[in-house]
Amino acid sequence: MSYRYKIEVTDVTLRDGMHAVRHQFSVEDAKAIASALDRTGVAKIEASHGDGLGGSSIQYGFSKESEEDYVGAVCQTVQRSQVVALLLPGIGTLEDLKRAVGLGIRGVRVATHSTEADISAEHMEEARKMGLDVVGFLMMSHMTETERLVEEAKKMASYGAHCVYIVDSAGAMLMDEVRRKVSALREALPDDVQVGFHAHNNLGVAVANSIAAVEEGAYRIDASLAGLGAGAGNTPLEVFVAACEKYGIETGVDLYAAMDAAEDVVRPRMARPVLTDRTALTLGYAGVYSSFLLHAERAARQFGVDVRDILVELGRRRVVGGQEDMIVDVAYEIAHGKEANANGPVASVHRG
Amino acid sequence: MSYRYKIEVTDVTLRDGMHAVRHQFSVEDAKAIASALDRTGVAKIEASHGDGLGGSSIQYGFSKESEEDYVGAVCQTVQRSQVVALLLPGIGTLEDLKRAVGLGIRGVRVATHSTEADISAEHMEEARKMGLDVVGFLMMSHMTETERLVEEAKKMASYGAHCVYIVDSAGAMLMDEVRRKVSALREALPDDVQVGFHAHNNLGVAVANSIAAVEEGAYRIDASLAGLGAGAGNTPLEVFVAACEKYGIETGVDLYAAMDAAEDVVRPRMARPVLTDRTALTLGYAGVYSSFLLHAERAARQFGVDVRDILVELGRRRVVGGQEDMIVDVAYEIAHGKEANANGPVASVHRG
Repeated sequence: MSYRYKIEVTDVTLRDGMHAVRHQFSVEDAKAIASALDRTGVAKIEASHGDGLGGSSIQYGFSKESEEDYVGAVCQTVQRSQVVALLLPGIGTLEDLKRAVGLGIRGVRVATHSTEADISAEHMEEARKMGLDVVGFLMMSHMTETERLVEEAKKMASYGAHCVYIVDSAGAMLMDEVRRKVSALREALPDDVQVGFHAHNNLGVAVANSIAAVEEGAYRIDASLAGLGAGAGNTPLEVFVAACEKYGIETGVDLYAAMDAAEDVVRPRMARPVLTDRTALTLGYAGVYSSFLLHAERAARQFGVDVRDILVELGRRRVVGGQEDMIVDVAYEIAHGKEANANGPVASVHRG
Repeated sequence: MSYRYKIEVTDVTLRDGMHAVRHQFSVEDAKAIASALDRTGVAKIEASHGDGLGGSSIQYGFSKESEEDYVGAVCQTVQRSQVVALLLPGIGTLEDLKRAVGLGIRGVRVATHSTEADISAEHMEEARKMGLDVVGFLMMSHMTETERLVEEAKKMASYGAHCVYIVDSAGAMLMDEVRRKVSALREALPDDVQVGFHAHNNLGVAVANSIAAVEEGAYRIDASLAGLGAGAGNTPLEVFVAACEKYGIETGVDLYAAMDAAEDVVRPRMARPVLTDRTALTLGYAGVYSSFLLHAERAARQFGVDVRDILVELGRRRVVGGQEDMIVDVAYEIAHGKEANANGPVASVHRG
């Protein structure tokens, strides 16, 4: 068949997937997965703690082994793919980045909240000087209106990003929003700056969102073997590649090798199947940080309200990390509204 | 929010989902699930053997309990939803249908291969006389070109169908094909005949395909709790409803009740998680009957070729049930081509 689109895939099994195994893959696991990925021909392989370089900590969870051992082993294992790392300014430092470059990474993805591109400037400029492939990673993009997202993406481009990603961290976007935001970035950015898209499957549409992103001009797409990743997981690489083959999108990934890597190498190493269960679905539907969950569950018990109503209201108010004190306020208000109106609780936001 | 579309959902947990548990739900299981579904407000609940009325047999697998007990229990359990049954002419008979009507079903879905609407005529006409809601169910619709599919749908409408479904039995369709076929049916059928869509998740796009179908004019959509169904499962009801709420599609289904039914009632009763594993993905990618799998695996071993190459070639040739002898021919040809060209086996159809 002839292809209508040509794209490049970045695999995130060894980074976002680390969340799904609580960062407990061993170096041997990482080598086995990297080797299987290398056979697929995937362009780039991201390797690091789920929260990026320097993420192994009491706050974000300790990795089973050292960052140096993981990244070094992956770089030495792969022959065809490029190894890249995630870096969140504030968690990872320039020292961490230099060390990773010494181990062999070829690119860095600098991640910020989708309204905070400013804090990526220094890391991107330094990364360019190091000769790295530089990606800007706009997390929680569903919370930010298209116009603002475009401004943030332009900033990242001005700092030297080769590619700017729309990152649907909460799996809260549907196809119409993906189309709107990807096409706006594609139109606004210089031609030599690529657009990327990173999905989560909390609303069950990661594959379709990724295809919609390609149709609107995204060139880089993230995926992971068997969908291994935080929440409901990422776009499953093998499923995405199969869909792309049928849809006329050239990925450069060998379908059967991806299928085998997912089934024979990753699934046996998964602590539990990646699926859109009630929690993952609630977070995607509400569009909130997964870190809100425990707080919201506690508040729900305290005030006798449905945790989902709290999360949906937090999403509606676009509460961000650091505003956790608002969770109790919201729970109180929902409980109060409930008392005031026995027939129809204000809490029933999900019905319309 | 205001809705852009209004649809009606038919739940198939107690019919297609039976495949996923090898027809081993007990009558008590069926009552628990039916009761949870009834609380969601879903319009219709399909209950019967995975292969429809009369399906419990040595050929299609015996149900754990009798059809009469299942259907009777479900009809007595539900108060809001209508109970409907699937019927495949040749498996189920008019006698089976009359018995099910006596037990309380309100509608029948008469299923044929997507080129064989003719054989539904008698059952549909009789069903109309019985005062039932009548659906035509065009299985393996991905194998049939749009023009032909329209002709078959028109036949079903002429036999008295209130609604004609495009059924993606193999989970082989992507959004562009769904749009093309649904819009063609919507345009060709009389206004008072609805269009329906039934998805499987083998390519990971069941939710997105169902939304695309709605956008093109489908009014009835099938789904099942936790996606329980054959292969990679059906459109997960709770995920679909969440996506619809965000997308502006009114389903009449209570989201939280659907989430709870999936998580608390169905998942604990599942023999294994429903997922797009290698086998399910291969079948969806190839677009073939799952019944071909065992034959193809045997032929793959015999001729030393990849089972996926056999299945993909069978799909390309649009082989249908009853033509299983072609499987060995295809395996032989692939093995032969392989010998003739050591550098590039003809079998590598998946790369382009």
